[in-house]
Amino acid sequence: MISVTIIGSGNVATHLFKAFNKANKITVNQWFSRNLNSIKDYKSITSITDNLSSLKTSDIYILAISDDAVSTVSSELPFSNRLVVHTSGSVGIHDLDRKNNRGVFYPLQTFSKNTDVDFSQVPFCIETLDKKDLPILKSLAEAIGSPHYKINTEQRQTLHLAAVFINNFTNQLYRIAHEISDAKSINFDILKPLIQETANKVQELSPYMAQTGPAKRNDKKTIKRHLKLLENEHHRTIYELLTKSIQKTHGVSRTSTTKK
Amino acid sequence: MISVTIIGSGNVATHLFKAFNKANKITVNQWFSRNLNSIKDYKSITSITDNLSSLKTSDIYILAISDDAVSTVSSELPFSNRLVVHTSGSVGIHDLDRKNNRGVFYPLQTFSKNTDVDFSQVPFCIETLDKKDLPILKSLAEAIGSPHYKINTEQRQTLHLAAVFINNFTNQLYRIAHEISDAKSINFDILKPLIQETANKVQELSPYMAQTGPAKRNDKKTIKRHLKLLENEHHRTIYELLTKSIQKTHGVSRTSTTKK
Repeated sequence: MISVTIIGSGNVATHLFKAFNKANKITVNQWFSRNLNSIKDYKSITSITDNLSSLKTSDIYILAISDDAVSTVSSELPFSNRLVVHTSGSVGIHDLDRKNNRGVFYPLQTFSKNTDVDFSQVPFCIETLDKKDLPILKSLAEAIGSPHYKINTEQRQTLHLAAVFINNFTNQLYRIAHEISDAKSINFDILKPLIQETANKVQELSPYMAQTGPAKRNDKKTIKRHLKLLENEHHRTIYELLTKSIQKTHGVSRTSTTKK
Repeated sequence: MISVTIIGSGNVATHLFKAFNKANKITVNQWFSRNLNSIKDYKSITSITDNLSSLKTSDIYILAISDDAVSTVSSELPFSNRLVVHTSGSVGIHDLDRKNNRGVFYPLQTFSKNTDVDFSQVPFCIETLDKKDLPILKSLAEAIGSPHYKINTEQRQTLHLAAVFINNFTNQLYRIAHEISDAKSINFDILKPLIQETANKVQELSPYMAQTGPAKRNDKKTIKRHLKLLENEHHRTIYELLTKSIQKTHGVSRTSTTKK
């Protein structure tokens, strides 16, 4: 049995609490939040507190708090030589106070407040300063059915950046498609299966192999027509830049003649 | 029973043939290709031909051929007053020769050569010049379990453009994430569940509502760190443009002070 103390009451903290609470091999010993009100609904299931000095002994303390708070809160912990991990994609492992054994337990996924999370689809990036602390974090991920990867701080910060491309920027492309189709009174539902299939395709194929379309085949006629169709200059700039990017990746010479 | 003649032997033609062939309410009367060799494997299942003048009578003739060939091939058909449709996202309905009844049967999806297609996830954009031809195209989509939408030529061309954002450009963002993570020896598999979840999220939520991340919350510290991490100038340009785009959409003032 792994005993855990959760510190924080945001999205990640709450989803972790629910997953840990369901897992057979994990006990949530205690849940801390500065704002006790935000976790009071759970007081019949676990011990809740807003007082750091009343923290009980656990195998792992998980700081699921904002990036800026990690350093301060870790130094305020009234104990030492215990395993303290944060859940941030961008905070370094050394930002945790050195009086405790330090680690990272970063879930690489997007969490919505009111949607249940399937933790089999949440890969954890695990890092520890001391090798001996690695197995317990692996067991913690396995106990909630999550895949896990050993990832150092530099790799984790790179993943956090890659996630912005994959999540935020991709979502903005969906948004632009939504704007474009809305302007012609087209039901956005028509595009949803394509959104799914585009994501499905790269589960097996590399994005390089999965690429198709006018940019890759240098279909200048279609590209020209698309640019003409785009009424918003900002959309046009994005179309041009990403077309150029695809052509760069696939070695399409922009001086070659139109194919068809 | 709907009888169909397929003209063309590319990806779309082949996937359509397979779906039609499985459907109870559809008979593929004949399959035409200029290159008979490309469809010879199917000659035991349907009549194949490379001769336009030997085309039999069918309820619908489907031109699943390249955009540039639609006009020519439709004018070469040796009959008139029958229903002839093309499957292109960008060719106008009037590009079909006027001697026949004209329509469009455009599947809005990405097809891979060697992957089976689930036609329940392939929405068809349907257009006909004569109202009376609409029901049979609807029935054709329904017979293979596909959703269908009545879409005019301008809307269809807009969808074709929106699909470039959703499919080609999104896939290029995946590719950039792949490049970034490869450079730090990170297994791309870690990012695959996030790709899936990003697509899943907008099946229920609008892309506007689904947006999160440093650009939307104007987290200048993280944006600055990300730009510093990006070693490729081209990637940096894309990061900056899409960050700006998100901030435009969400009314984030670029002059406001850093929040956290």
